[in-house]
Amino acid sequence: MRRAYGKLAEVLSGFASIHYSIKANPNPGVIGVLIGQGAGVEIASLGEYRLARSAGADPSRILFAGPGKRAEELAVVLREGIGEIHLESLEEIARIERLIEAGGVPAPVAIRFNPVAEVQGGAMRMGGRPAPFGFDEEELDGVVDQVEASAAFDLRGVHMFAGTQILDADMLAGQWAHGLAVARRVAARIGRPLKTIDLGGGLGIPYYIGEAALDLERLATHIPALAEALAADPLTRDAQVVVEPGRFLVGPAGVYVACVLAAKTSRGSRFLVTDGGMHHHLAASGNLGQIIKRDYPVLAPARMGEPATVTASLAGPLCTPLDMIARKAELPDLREGDLVAVLQSGAYGLSASPVNFLGHPLPREVLVDGGAARLISC
Amino acid sequence: MRRAYGKLAEVLSGFASIHYSIKANPNPGVIGVLIGQGAGVEIASLGEYRLARSAGADPSRILFAGPGKRAEELAVVLREGIGEIHLESLEEIARIERLIEAGGVPAPVAIRFNPVAEVQGGAMRMGGRPAPFGFDEEELDGVVDQVEASAAFDLRGVHMFAGTQILDADMLAGQWAHGLAVARRVAARIGRPLKTIDLGGGLGIPYYIGEAALDLERLATHIPALAEALAADPLTRDAQVVVEPGRFLVGPAGVYVACVLAAKTSRGSRFLVTDGGMHHHLAASGNLGQIIKRDYPVLAPARMGEPATVTASLAGPLCTPLDMIARKAELPDLREGDLVAVLQSGAYGLSASPVNFLGHPLPREVLVDGGAARLISC
Repeated sequence: MRRAYGKLAEVLSGFASIHYSIKANPNPGVIGVLIGQGAGVEIASLGEYRLARSAGADPSRILFAGPGKRAEELAVVLREGIGEIHLESLEEIARIERLIEAGGVPAPVAIRFNPVAEVQGGAMRMGGRPAPFGFDEEELDGVVDQVEASAAFDLRGVHMFAGTQILDADMLAGQWAHGLAVARRVAARIGRPLKTIDLGGGLGIPYYIGEAALDLERLATHIPALAEALAADPLTRDAQVVVEPGRFLVGPAGVYVACVLAAKTSRGSRFLVTDGGMHHHLAASGNLGQIIKRDYPVLAPARMGEPATVTASLAGPLCTPLDMIARKAELPDLREGDLVAVLQSGAYGLSASPVNFLGHPLPREVLVDGGAARLISC
Repeated sequence: MRRAYGKLAEVLSGFASIHYSIKANPNPGVIGVLIGQGAGVEIASLGEYRLARSAGADPSRILFAGPGKRAEELAVVLREGIGEIHLESLEEIARIERLIEAGGVPAPVAIRFNPVAEVQGGAMRMGGRPAPFGFDEEELDGVVDQVEASAAFDLRGVHMFAGTQILDADMLAGQWAHGLAVARRVAARIGRPLKTIDLGGGLGIPYYIGEAALDLERLATHIPALAEALAADPLTRDAQVVVEPGRFLVGPAGVYVACVLAAKTSRGSRFLVTDGGMHHHLAASGNLGQIIKRDYPVLAPARMGEPATVTASLAGPLCTPLDMIARKAELPDLREGDLVAVLQSGAYGLSASPVNFLGHPLPREVLVDGGAARLISC
């Protein structure tokens, strides 16, 4: 995690700061590592606010996004402190106005916009088409005017989230350039400098055969032009630009380990039944939005030197065919008691899984830091 | 739930008894209702054993299935009491043998078999092809001999599970006939009467437009022939036949209700953002094994008399496009504060959902019985 943060921070140096999107892995032990590196955090619920605070996050460095923020959530973060709330609907604007008493401290906000189509990319598009998130870019001016006219708000900037799991550096830089252009337009409309420009996250990691990692060196080649565009306009020159990755920072650091309970051959196919499965790692089972079920990288951590001689399916203990963590894993000939490990599992793992399904125990979460291992299960 | 149980019990009268498969909804309040009607239970983990016991299940009426039973789980149920353990792998056979001391009480077991192809059916096939569950039917004789020869086991019968979400009564009856045939073969091999024949579950309910409910009257027409086949063989004549539905008993009784937080139009499409979503009801979001995402039946429970004038997507509060409970719901023109209800939600709802994803609150679970409502959240 420190390595991923450090590399990205170096690429973004002088242009943008990093807020960790904790939805990727909300374990306070993980959040704490990234805060320790200098990251702010991005949250999407009061529950995540509590986790971020318990990990030591400074309220002023917490950004609150999400299409369905409830009044109770908004009341708490406004009372206890928040860096910025990303406005996503007219109802949310009215909800905050009701919470800010006449003459009270205005709520620090940015307006989330759903960008137009030409800047789209990534495995899962989140803009360019109809969406429940934020305001359509085409309708931004009216929303900006409304928020700017209200005494309940301190309008600080804009927030864009254009996609997720993006592995193409050029596409990412193109989205960021578009975000800066919209920010300039908003700044011109309100006629004063923006304080923040949040370009969103979406930085991907490779999961499947044939996928290549996001090329940070290539991304770096785009930064001077982006920084120049920012500096060229006096209304954006001093804005804090924010990038909010989640998966990119924590995904590659996580390994999910399960133990083989039975090794069997059924009608010519090899199955390893393990004590772990979709209740711990829904994404690896292919049931977290994947259109096609492909295998995460899998290996046998205690038998790394041995050649892969068997193609096996890794089945979990749940009584359903959905509970299949890998379908064509190339492994040594494993038996009861052997371990299997799923790599790239640090993001959207346990916290995104149906932990109570079939009533099996939770896995332990362990933070390995240098030579030390520490239990960090919540 | 009582109505579903009663209708099915009437159809099966004189042929089979009903064990409720609690994986469909393991809330003890729900389990308690079905035990009260006379159901036994089918579990698939020690966690489910605890839930069933807390709901008042008699240990002798609990069946324990699942492809990955751990030694700790087996030890507890053998100590505290269990009706039958369904053997699913050679490792499990050895695991139980290690737990039964020489001269100790033999473990009550049945052998789960994975049936051959010609009897398959249902939306999700669980037999006929390679599978991690039980033993292939083709290899059953050797397993029967091994279990029968061991002093650690009281071999009581066989267990078949051939599919899930089956809506075709003829297909279901065909599977049951096949299960009885295999049972007769096993009984002949051991040369003594079977005590139990578990024909599995898989009874479906309609979710989507164009699906028709399982025709119980048609199923009833098959029962005399099945009962006759059972009675014709002195080695199966006195066996207790078990059917273990889950979804069929509880699915139609459950309604999931969420509240609209924002109503917005994005690029011509209507979105209702609610306080409920995939973290409460993964199946309705189309991420629990569905190949094609189709909508569960949705309505506005407090505005039932009004015509549906709007086609809307129901988005949840999570910051991901996956969080979409319905895509083309036909509803009145709902606004903030209105309620939306998802029907057919009593099975594979909350317990099969990633409840911690994005840190939002859990829904309350309420049991409505006649005119009384009782909070049954765990």
